[in-house]
Amino acid sequence: MLTFDQVEAAQRRLVDRIHRTPVVTCRSFDDATGFHVFFKCENQQRAGSFKIRGALNKLLTLSAEERARGVVAYSSGNHGQGVALAAHMVGTTAVLCMPTDAPALKVAATRDYGAQIVFYDRQKDDREAMARKICADSGRVLVPPYDDYAVMAGQGTAALELLQDVPSLDALVGPVGGGGLMAGCATAATSLFPAIQIFGVEPDTANDTFLSFQKGERIRIPPPPTIADGVRVLMPGELTFPILKDKVIEILLVSDQEIVETLRFLLFRAKVLLEPTGAVAAAALFAGKVPLERGARVGVILSGGNVDPEPLAKIVQSR
Amino acid sequence: MLTFDQVEAAQRRLVDRIHRTPVVTCRSFDDATGFHVFFKCENQQRAGSFKIRGALNKLLTLSAEERARGVVAYSSGNHGQGVALAAHMVGTTAVLCMPTDAPALKVAATRDYGAQIVFYDRQKDDREAMARKICADSGRVLVPPYDDYAVMAGQGTAALELLQDVPSLDALVGPVGGGGLMAGCATAATSLFPAIQIFGVEPDTANDTFLSFQKGERIRIPPPPTIADGVRVLMPGELTFPILKDKVIEILLVSDQEIVETLRFLLFRAKVLLEPTGAVAAAALFAGKVPLERGARVGVILSGGNVDPEPLAKIVQSR
Repeated sequence: MLTFDQVEAAQRRLVDRIHRTPVVTCRSFDDATGFHVFFKCENQQRAGSFKIRGALNKLLTLSAEERARGVVAYSSGNHGQGVALAAHMVGTTAVLCMPTDAPALKVAATRDYGAQIVFYDRQKDDREAMARKICADSGRVLVPPYDDYAVMAGQGTAALELLQDVPSLDALVGPVGGGGLMAGCATAATSLFPAIQIFGVEPDTANDTFLSFQKGERIRIPPPPTIADGVRVLMPGELTFPILKDKVIEILLVSDQEIVETLRFLLFRAKVLLEPTGAVAAAALFAGKVPLERGARVGVILSGGNVDPEPLAKIVQSR
Repeated sequence: MLTFDQVEAAQRRLVDRIHRTPVVTCRSFDDATGFHVFFKCENQQRAGSFKIRGALNKLLTLSAEERARGVVAYSSGNHGQGVALAAHMVGTTAVLCMPTDAPALKVAATRDYGAQIVFYDRQKDDREAMARKICADSGRVLVPPYDDYAVMAGQGTAALELLQDVPSLDALVGPVGGGGLMAGCATAATSLFPAIQIFGVEPDTANDTFLSFQKGERIRIPPPPTIADGVRVLMPGELTFPILKDKVIEILLVSDQEIVETLRFLLFRAKVLLEPTGAVAAAALFAGKVPLERGARVGVILSGGNVDPEPLAKIVQSR
């Protein structure tokens, strides 16, 4: 079970180790949506996304002996960078399983944090099995990307900070991949403000949680082609799904086109750089898909900002 | 004369009308420079730069009768947008003198705020004379871009906010065009903390204030080609220069290349979008030109973020 106490304890562990990210408002986004929106800028978090919160909380809850054995994670993206940085911060080592076709910049960033990288073939290898084998062989501890209470509790500190800074929100909106971010954030938010409405947002091709909500049980989808690579997850987590089902009112869907338009609007108007996944939650508001009264006060998690120059240049110029 | 009281009074006038912009830190910028840097994000200010501070303060210090007559400004850039928005906010009208070759996006943004635009030919017309004639004919009040104490006091609120949020800075660094921003900021900062070191930064081709510091009097330069269009000023202001001479330790120079590299670093690492002018002050730190001890705590004004998609795409991809 995930409790508010765990999120609060995570906040005490993380304070002064990571950024308390700013909350930004943008008048033109408010004018465009009719809401009063407060953006929690996790794109400005250390390592460029909220992922350091969960990874570092997990590492800090291990015993000293476990921590000393080192950790393992599988991720070509933000979770990998979060685990690599967290391991560096607590003075242990990390092994990252990354696909052979991972962007060179992400490989370099992960190496910069001192992590060892083990490559796998996206077509042939089972990265999760590979990570578990490394753990079994080496005694290292696996840091799961979402299906872990310590990881969820860490992610929940993003909402906790936001609600400490802006205590009067009608709703909270965030992106849903495996569900770790929103499981933590929904737990924090509804514990503090039971009436707050929580919405999760997925790309319309990565709608595993949307479908699972409809069916009432976890549904697996084929690999989704969405531009939002941070939420290309095939199935909600075993531990995260019951929490989302309990606390999230509705899963909303946005198209890649809506994600890109929102990314561009927030870049040129709010002056914040997001990766496509980082714009998913805001896109639901920008596309008019969040069922709230005009004038509602809405918190939005901008989850990450790690985008490479070439895709960014394309997005900037697309029309 | 410009006093701290005027800056404080400006803050009381502006509060709740404009954004209290966030202060952002970026570990990788700190690692790269050896300083502990606090970025005051005026790129996230209303209308995209600090200029709304001075313009709105000026309009709010006019008598009701003067204000009702409307205002005039000459600017193809951020000052124009600031005046247009300020006029809209206080319920009066603005006439903006803009060059015939002003970017369509900037013309549109200024019109969106309800301003009337009068075009001038950059080669043939004297925009300042044109603005003064409109004032004489119509009874409108001129809002100068920098050489005005109410404008300077408004700009100084940027430093006042920064030092309220981060009261222990060793130095403050900001861009210098006409000098209004740094006259106001230096007055606020040195009044609160007499030992704080103030540095102004100019592009190396727009070095009018640098040369004027050397000579001890105001020097005029030919139109500078720098990419930082917000500080393409030919001569320091008559009123701003004595204040800068009194309070700014040194004017530092940066190249366009250094500006662009800093812009790109802060975009991809700190996730903030700056226009080239907005990166001028940070560039002095990034290029190692600020004579401070390692570990110094430095406030930096990121002055604006209004950049168009095409030039941004070019900057993003340049190497």
